Amino acid sequence: MRLIDQLTLPDDLAALDTQGLRQVAFEVRDEIIRVISCNGGHLGASLGAVDLTVALHAELRSPNDKVVWDVGHQAYAHKILTGRLGEFVGIRTLGGLSGFPRREESPHDSFGTGHSSTSISAAVGLAEAARWRGDGGHVVAVIGDGALTGGMAFEGLNQAGHLRTPLVVVLNDNEMSIGRNVGAVSAYLSRLRTDPTLARVRRDLERFVQQMPGIGEAIYAMGGQLKEGVKAALVPGMLFEELGFTYLGVIDGHDIEAVRHHLGRALEMRIPVFLHVQTVKGKGYIPAEEAPDKFHGCSAFCVETGEPLQQGKRISYTETFGRALVELAREDERVVGITAAMASGTGMDFLEETFPDRFYDVGIAEQHAVGFAAGLAAAGLRPVVALYSTFLQRAYDQVIHDVCLQNLPVVFAVDRAGLVGEDGPTHHGAFDLSFLRVIPGLTIFCPKDEGELQGLLATALSLDGPSVIRYPRGQGLGVPLPRPIRPLEGPWVEVLRQGSDALLLACGTGVRLCEEAAAILGERGQSATVAAVPRIKPFDESLLLDLIERHPLVVTVEENALVGGFGSAVLETMQAGGVVRPVLRFGLPDRFVAHGSSDRLRRMVGLTPAFVAAETLNLVKIAARS
Amino acid sequence: MRLIDQLTLPDDLAALDTQGLRQVAFEVRDEIIRVISCNGGHLGASLGAVDLTVALHAELRSPNDKVVWDVGHQAYAHKILTGRLGEFVGIRTLGGLSGFPRREESPHDSFGTGHSSTSISAAVGLAEAARWRGDGGHVVAVIGDGALTGGMAFEGLNQAGHLRTPLVVVLNDNEMSIGRNVGAVSAYLSRLRTDPTLARVRRDLERFVQQMPGIGEAIYAMGGQLKEGVKAALVPGMLFEELGFTYLGVIDGHDIEAVRHHLGRALEMRIPVFLHVQTVKGKGYIPAEEAPDKFHGCSAFCVETGEPLQQGKRISYTETFGRALVELAREDERVVGITAAMASGTGMDFLEETFPDRFYDVGIAEQHAVGFAAGLAAAGLRPVVALYSTFLQRAYDQVIHDVCLQNLPVVFAVDRAGLVGEDGPTHHGAFDLSFLRVIPGLTIFCPKDEGELQGLLATALSLDGPSVIRYPRGQGLGVPLPRPIRPLEGPWVEVLRQGSDALLLACGTGVRLCEEAAAILGERGQSATVAAVPRIKPFDESLLLDLIERHPLVVTVEENALVGGFGSAVLETMQAGGVVRPVLRFGLPDRFVAHGSSDRLRRMVGLTPAFVAAETLNLVKIAARS
Repeated sequence: MRLIDQLTLPDDLAALDTQGLRQVAFEVRDEIIRVISCNGGHLGASLGAVDLTVALHAELRSPNDKVVWDVGHQAYAHKILTGRLGEFVGIRTLGGLSGFPRREESPHDSFGTGHSSTSISAAVGLAEAARWRGDGGHVVAVIGDGALTGGMAFEGLNQAGHLRTPLVVVLNDNEMSIGRNVGAVSAYLSRLRTDPTLARVRRDLERFVQQMPGIGEAIYAMGGQLKEGVKAALVPGMLFEELGFTYLGVIDGHDIEAVRHHLGRALEMRIPVFLHVQTVKGKGYIPAEEAPDKFHGCSAFCVETGEPLQQGKRISYTETFGRALVELAREDERVVGITAAMASGTGMDFLEETFPDRFYDVGIAEQHAVGFAAGLAAAGLRPVVALYSTFLQRAYDQVIHDVCLQNLPVVFAVDRAGLVGEDGPTHHGAFDLSFLRVIPGLTIFCPKDEGELQGLLATALSLDGPSVIRYPRGQGLGVPLPRPIRPLEGPWVEVLRQGSDALLLACGTGVRLCEEAAAILGERGQSATVAAVPRIKPFDESLLLDLIERHPLVVTVEENALVGGFGSAVLETMQAGGVVRPVLRFGLPDRFVAHGSSDRLRRMVGLTPAFVAAETLNLVKIAARS
Repeated sequence: MRLIDQLTLPDDLAALDTQGLRQVAFEVRDEIIRVISCNGGHLGASLGAVDLTVALHAELRSPNDKVVWDVGHQAYAHKILTGRLGEFVGIRTLGGLSGFPRREESPHDSFGTGHSSTSISAAVGLAEAARWRGDGGHVVAVIGDGALTGGMAFEGLNQAGHLRTPLVVVLNDNEMSIGRNVGAVSAYLSRLRTDPTLARVRRDLERFVQQMPGIGEAIYAMGGQLKEGVKAALVPGMLFEELGFTYLGVIDGHDIEAVRHHLGRALEMRIPVFLHVQTVKGKGYIPAEEAPDKFHGCSAFCVETGEPLQQGKRISYTETFGRALVELAREDERVVGITAAMASGTGMDFLEETFPDRFYDVGIAEQHAVGFAAGLAAAGLRPVVALYSTFLQRAYDQVIHDVCLQNLPVVFAVDRAGLVGEDGPTHHGAFDLSFLRVIPGLTIFCPKDEGELQGLLATALSLDGPSVIRYPRGQGLGVPLPRPIRPLEGPWVEVLRQGSDALLLACGTGVRLCEEAAAILGERGQSATVAAVPRIKPFDESLLLDLIERHPLVVTVEENALVGGFGSAVLETMQAGGVVRPVLRFGLPDRFVAHGSSDRLRRMVGLTPAFVAAETLNLVKIAARS
């Protein structure tokens, strides 16, 4: 029987000796590898944080003491160590544990995460509230070096240092965000980690300065002012010290005792402390240590070999985008690509390989990514910014204020639009059509397949203003991907099937769904027209209204929130055109959609051909009776 | 005749001597004071930057060299010095110059601004594009110390330092954002500015270290590694040096020659340089120097006394909110207030005065403001975050991901919703109903007057989930503001006038407009029902549908974009309820609305009782005929 099965967790950790804690860490790793090899998940980050997590829970008294896990994909060990060992097997499946901390799931999940760089802000809030109540609870934020580049993290440090909030920020430094880290802060951390000579010289200089009578007197005479100056030479982590934090580090994050010791010191201080811990992403599983980006987020794999259990047969939307961008960049030297620490996730790595000097990875910094793109576009380039739908929310103001208000030709490649499956509500791209559609002057495309995606990318690059192409996670439909890539030029309402009883209007993944629904309706003796709408904004209103007027009722299907999305745009167009028809709309409901396989989630929200056909049939019958 | 009337600007500045440049600065100040005392505007920031601007344009060759003005409200001198002296008299009026840089306005406005902390990102883009093209143009970003706390600025510094982008960031440090600055970075800048002893000790230590034989040898032996350590003691601005910038400062920003000299040095370096310039907000106009927050953004005033020419007679929405918050905080000790450098602009200063320890100014850092509020709410407090509608866009992801996904009881007081007038498109609160309405679980209130505002604030604080109250800039309607404040509990559709020919549905400022439109319709022999909808989400759908079904046509009025706003919500509700009626919608058009007086802008977009009445009358007649 395993040790972790015998313990009451996390309480019993405090009493274990180092050997016991190491055993716990070993067993937790084993459990994580076993389960994630079946369910898929964020393996590398969670394995890297196991020893750190054991040390944290041995030292803290959760849930009175609170840990906020930045991004949260490294919190698997935290879940196992806080009473969820038995449920861990179901992580990321429908009805099972979430892949991220969730307040509903456990009192030990003090704050929900999923997006990057939020932990310090939340922790400052928790710590200020604890201080205000005087409940004595400690608050710890655990943030990766990748997430530290996000501006929100800096904003949080800035306030915590100012307020002198009692708070420990643990920097879990594995030199990676998802790919290798970039940016000046990253280079700075690297200097802190890798400079033993510097550390030795600091010690030597410190001793020397203390011994020199002249200097010693000067320090005395200056009332400590010189100390500040000398401190800068002697104290590593000056960047954080300048922000009001006391810096401790660098500590080996796999040495559980060392982490406990320094964390204990940090907690006692009751001031803002920055604890710099170095870990190895994927630690304890060789394939993950060797290919950390492959195991950042992975699908089910063979534990022995590290090879994925099944490969997609068809090319993904992401890869289609990435390869198309290279082709189009070849033809137009103004084209440059920007990613926010997601080169491989967005397919931008193809551009990086082919045209490295026309590729920018700005790190986890979506606001800057968009502002930077606006600057490039203002100077005559044609930047393409590839982001996941849900992370684009982070740059919403920049899309409006820096790009669209100036009508700059920036192309936003919005990946992971719609349901993403196991990553759940923090990652579903549920809202983009609604929040983008309101922005004046922004052209919005929504391809029905990967062939249309590459054509629309060419179209977008030919525009003189800003544009968005939104497309889903996962494999395409297997359609041809011709070369050279030709821009699509409309018509922007494409009739795929002619009928007379109902008009099914759809965008994106909704198009194939409608074709299948129309087939079902056909079997029931009803003929439906199916029309794809690849350009959501602006609509080709006259084409659309003509089509609507020729049908007794209208059905809209989209993989976006029903509030304010594609279907609402159809309603608005009908209202403006004075066309009155019964309308049925299918899309994502007005609630956050859970995690689970995308297929099961789509059934749950009614985005299936059978459901759409059945509901349409009902309305056809009602309409026929009246 | 003035010197500035005789010069070809900006080209002739380069040839002027110091005396001439000072004369130019004097005349520019005079022009700014004269015009802004009539038109209103951002006086303090622009006066503070006059000498700096003269120095920049004497040293740079605009527009080949480019200046990006962060926020942009300090760019009046820039406009005068780049060919817009003759037009300056019309600044901020309809059809006149914008109060902010705009690319459409002049080739010298290299990048449009209005929101804070965007300049470095844009400048990195401009500079990378210039480097790529090899056109040799310089790029300078001018950013205030307040704007430097925004995370986007940090993200920009991080990338520029990493890329070694040739770029000069001029920190225009006036120790203010709008009110006094807060945060650890602010404290750090203050240390840099105010520590002559430290500077002297640094020099002494440098000399000492150079002379000591032991140390000198050690430096040699270590191959320069020690230098890095010692440098930290010797070099001020280590925070920026660590980010890859060369720091120059502190320079007197009113000493034109000094600024020119250091800027020249900085430009020659062709690497990222951080030029720290100290200025006085309001410089050259005593009333503005003495009350910088009053003159940050001001309406027309008497030049002799500095007193405003006319005071509003009625209490503003902002003040109503601020006073109500104090009352409600008195009754519930969990209530705390958060502002992002806008204590007086949002009315949060009333809370600051009464309960200083329950008030947080996080600086210009909207993302953190919302994340911090989420942390406080997760720990049981009831935070109220007051932001302008247009700045809330900066925290959109945090509203979704940190607050609403966790259903945390944070109240968002969204001020400046709707048209704001002279500040124009960067500041109009045109989109909030659309981008907020899509967020699941968020309750959205929109009061018709300031009395309802205070009642709805009480209602919002009584909810167990997140909520928004949106209200406009400017004076209320003069309704009573009873004490104690009682929460409003519905009904959420309030019929204000009964009629039968049309139903006018409105929220916010649209309600009074509809009452007046109904009066006009009455004069034309048509009776209209007027109903106010103070809760936009969730709607009371059955009440709303009942009302709609009792009328032959529906008119909606809102001061929000027509795309996805209140009227769209009505369309969605009618569609879901299967109710079919002709609908007319009035609101903001699908384009960015210009600057000018709010009254004129409302006429321009058709948000007047006369226009709504006339259009409604047309539809009534058409409906009667069919």
